[in-house]
Amino acid sequence: MEKLEMLYEGKAKIIYRTSDEQVVWISYKDSATAFNGEKKAVIQGKGRLNNEISSLLFEMLAAEGIPSHFVKRLSETEQLVKKVEIVPIEVVVRNIAAGTLAKRLGLAEGEILPQTIVEFYYKNDDLGDPLINDDHIAILNLANPEQLAEMRSSALKVNEVLTTYFASKNVKLVDFKLEYGTDENGQLLLADEVSPDTCRLWDSETNEKLDKDVFRRDLGDLTTAYEKILERLGGVSCTK
Amino acid sequence: MEKLEMLYEGKAKIIYRTSDEQVVWISYKDSATAFNGEKKAVIQGKGRLNNEISSLLFEMLAAEGIPSHFVKRLSETEQLVKKVEIVPIEVVVRNIAAGTLAKRLGLAEGEILPQTIVEFYYKNDDLGDPLINDDHIAILNLANPEQLAEMRSSALKVNEVLTTYFASKNVKLVDFKLEYGTDENGQLLLADEVSPDTCRLWDSETNEKLDKDVFRRDLGDLTTAYEKILERLGGVSCTK
Repeated sequence: MEKLEMLYEGKAKIIYRTSDEQVVWISYKDSATAFNGEKKAVIQGKGRLNNEISSLLFEMLAAEGIPSHFVKRLSETEQLVKKVEIVPIEVVVRNIAAGTLAKRLGLAEGEILPQTIVEFYYKNDDLGDPLINDDHIAILNLANPEQLAEMRSSALKVNEVLTTYFASKNVKLVDFKLEYGTDENGQLLLADEVSPDTCRLWDSETNEKLDKDVFRRDLGDLTTAYEKILERLGGVSCTK
Repeated sequence: MEKLEMLYEGKAKIIYRTSDEQVVWISYKDSATAFNGEKKAVIQGKGRLNNEISSLLFEMLAAEGIPSHFVKRLSETEQLVKKVEIVPIEVVVRNIAAGTLAKRLGLAEGEILPQTIVEFYYKNDDLGDPLINDDHIAILNLANPEQLAEMRSSALKVNEVLTTYFASKNVKLVDFKLEYGTDENGQLLLADEVSPDTCRLWDSETNEKLDKDVFRRDLGDLTTAYEKILERLGGVSCTK
């Protein structure tokens, strides 16, 4: 597989074309952004950590029957994924109140929700990724009702698998954001990444935050937190 | 029926107990508020206009088989309604993009929506009445799934009836907000008011705004706009 020209540079990743039309080469960047890009930093080692963690989690999810765009990890900061057309909807699943949910509904951060919540956000930086409902999705033609139902049910399955998996690693899965894409056959696949950038992960005993909130809220060293996650998942941590 | 002590004073209405336990006496105030109470004014005649218009519309809706809390109009500014426990959800129905929908989704105001949209907002001033989805409603226990389905289908029926009715009066029904309550038997009833305070109403030919946006956006005299609506609905306008 040959890495060809750059197709797109996002906030956290660069995507390159490859010699295979259906596969793209992803390079994770050492950059952190929050609040719709308003807060930015270069954080050495972050690209490697997200690439390693996301690769481990996509492999684990595949073994549990959840298809994704992930093909294989190439290097510390690179992976191959199937080329998909991203559905412009961020699917957020929540088990514990935190972040914008706590603010929106006036809940205390850390409150265990009486049931799992699924939320859809319109992936649109200019609009600040607003919360949307099924009717908004229909008028914007972001996904058809079958895709939406599939995304919802897939996200709930991902939640079950990840919650159990993280619990066995002494980590609480508070909430997470997923993105989906469609491949050349129109099949819906889990895409983007699954990492401490996209999941809120708290230590099961101490509630120590081991995710991007460390950066968002200036709670300490981000890579130390991400290294802890990688280590608990059985990956090789470079600080050890 | 006797008017007894005040039960509650809201932004636009005062509610009094009556000699009948199941009926309350409502007095419409001459006050206008917008942006969650940040903008306020006393507007003489507004109470009368909203009371008259809302009474006419509740009577018309009842004739079309849509039950509401409305019992009867008592005077220029007063009406009797059944006592209900308000469901803390604002049900918004939209036919044309305007207001927060246009902002949220980046649509041009006035764009006809490809399908009618129903939105639910959490009726909570402290939180700024945020948009919520069915999962949020479930965890906050604001309504059960049957009530929610009934509110949605009732709101869509109200939309059909009102759209046709207003069209016959040369008025476009852009969007509107409904509130529901449950009576002593647990029956869901349309409640609050249906007026230019709660509906966006545009002249069918000129798109002149004949609703609270005149106040929100300082577009002219509010009572002149509301008088036009009352007149078109066949009510007695006091300026004529």
